[in-house]
Amino acid sequence: MDSFEEEKKKIERFVKERDWDQFHSPANLAKSISIESSEFLKCFQWNEKNYGKRVAQEEFADVMIYCFQMGIAMDFDIKKIIAEKMAKNAVK
Amino acid sequence: MDSFEEEKKKIERFVKERDWDQFHSPANLAKSISIESSEFLKCFQWNEKNYGKRVAQEEFADVMIYCFQMGIAMDFDIKKIIAEKMAKNAVK
Amino acid sequence: MDSFEEEKKKIERFVKERDWDQFHSPANLAKSISIESSEFLKCFQWNEKNYGKRVAQEEFADVMIYCFQMGIAMDFDIKKIIAEKMAKNAVK
Amino acid sequence: MDSFEEEKKKIERFVKERDWDQFHSPANLAKSISIESSEFLKCFQWNEKNYGKRVAQEEFADVMIYCFQMGIAMDFDIKKIIAEKMAKNAVK
Repeated sequence: MDSFEEEKKKIERFVKERDWDQFHSPANLAKSISIESSEFLKCFQWNEKNYGKRVAQEEFADVMIYCFQMGIAMDFDIKKIIAEKMAKNAVK
Repeated sequence: MDSFEEEKKKIERFVKERDWDQFHSPANLAKSISIESSEFLKCFQWNEKNYGKRVAQEEFADVMIYCFQMGIAMDFDIKKIIAEKMAKNAVK
Repeated sequence: MDSFEEEKKKIERFVKERDWDQFHSPANLAKSISIESSEFLKCFQWNEKNYGKRVAQEEFADVMIYCFQMGIAMDFDIKKIIAEKMAKNAVK
Repeated sequence: MDSFEEEKKKIERFVKERDWDQFHSPANLAKSISIESSEFLKCFQWNEKNYGKRVAQEEFADVMIYCFQMGIAMDFDIKKIIAEKMAKNAVK
């Protein structure tokens, strides 16, 4: 099992323990990824150079966590779909 | 080396070959993650239930690819920062 | 009638003629504003200084048009709610 | 002077009194519109039907306020560019 699948398992457990999976439709998670990535962007809102590395790291982690939750909800093999998209982007 | 580090290496090579790394400041990548996550959200814009799984998969992959580029630009140990944020979220 | 109300009327007519109002729930329009504002942000994705003024203008107009559609869907008196929020922001 | 121009004047005064205009480059404001529209989207993150009308109204007002600040920064005649974009959208 690669790290992505491990990560999905770990996060899935976390979410199920809290009964949050009932809210985790793909549409809700897509909104959530978008919302979290905006909170991350906030670190660079007024100044692109001086940002709090600690806060940035935490906001980024939240984006990643929602991405893995999406991987769970849509049953994505994350490693594989990245490889496929990279191959497609390479052609462009 | 875990899959996260492997993925970062693979994407880093891809980006360097195209000389794109000059544009990949954390601020620009934060904008990019936000922009791509909105393109992903577009799959669910007017209808939350019926969405093209193929398009969704590709848009999601683009979000992930930019996330890894951010991991490279900010030198994040992605596995570690997710674990730390999960631990913090668990306390809440 | 102030320009905001006039604008809402004009856009409402446009939307109704196309039978789009059935899709215009507040939630769908909130997604749409977010999506369009990301397309606008795209003008500044890799370079904050050199952007196409024409494209920027059109993307910005799309954000505004969705905002007015939201004003219609939620029956907002836009002039009034801006004034109220400004007063609140002034205190901070 | 139409309400759009009036609104711009009012917000411009507010911003200048606080010396915030130094930060209000088009790029920073584009990020800000995107960030605020995500905060607005948050009202509909987990439930599309039951949302706090009061909070939604305030978040929406913040989006509009940044839009007017963009109108100031890019010297847009908002009424005019909406009309032009509507005419273009009508053709599609």
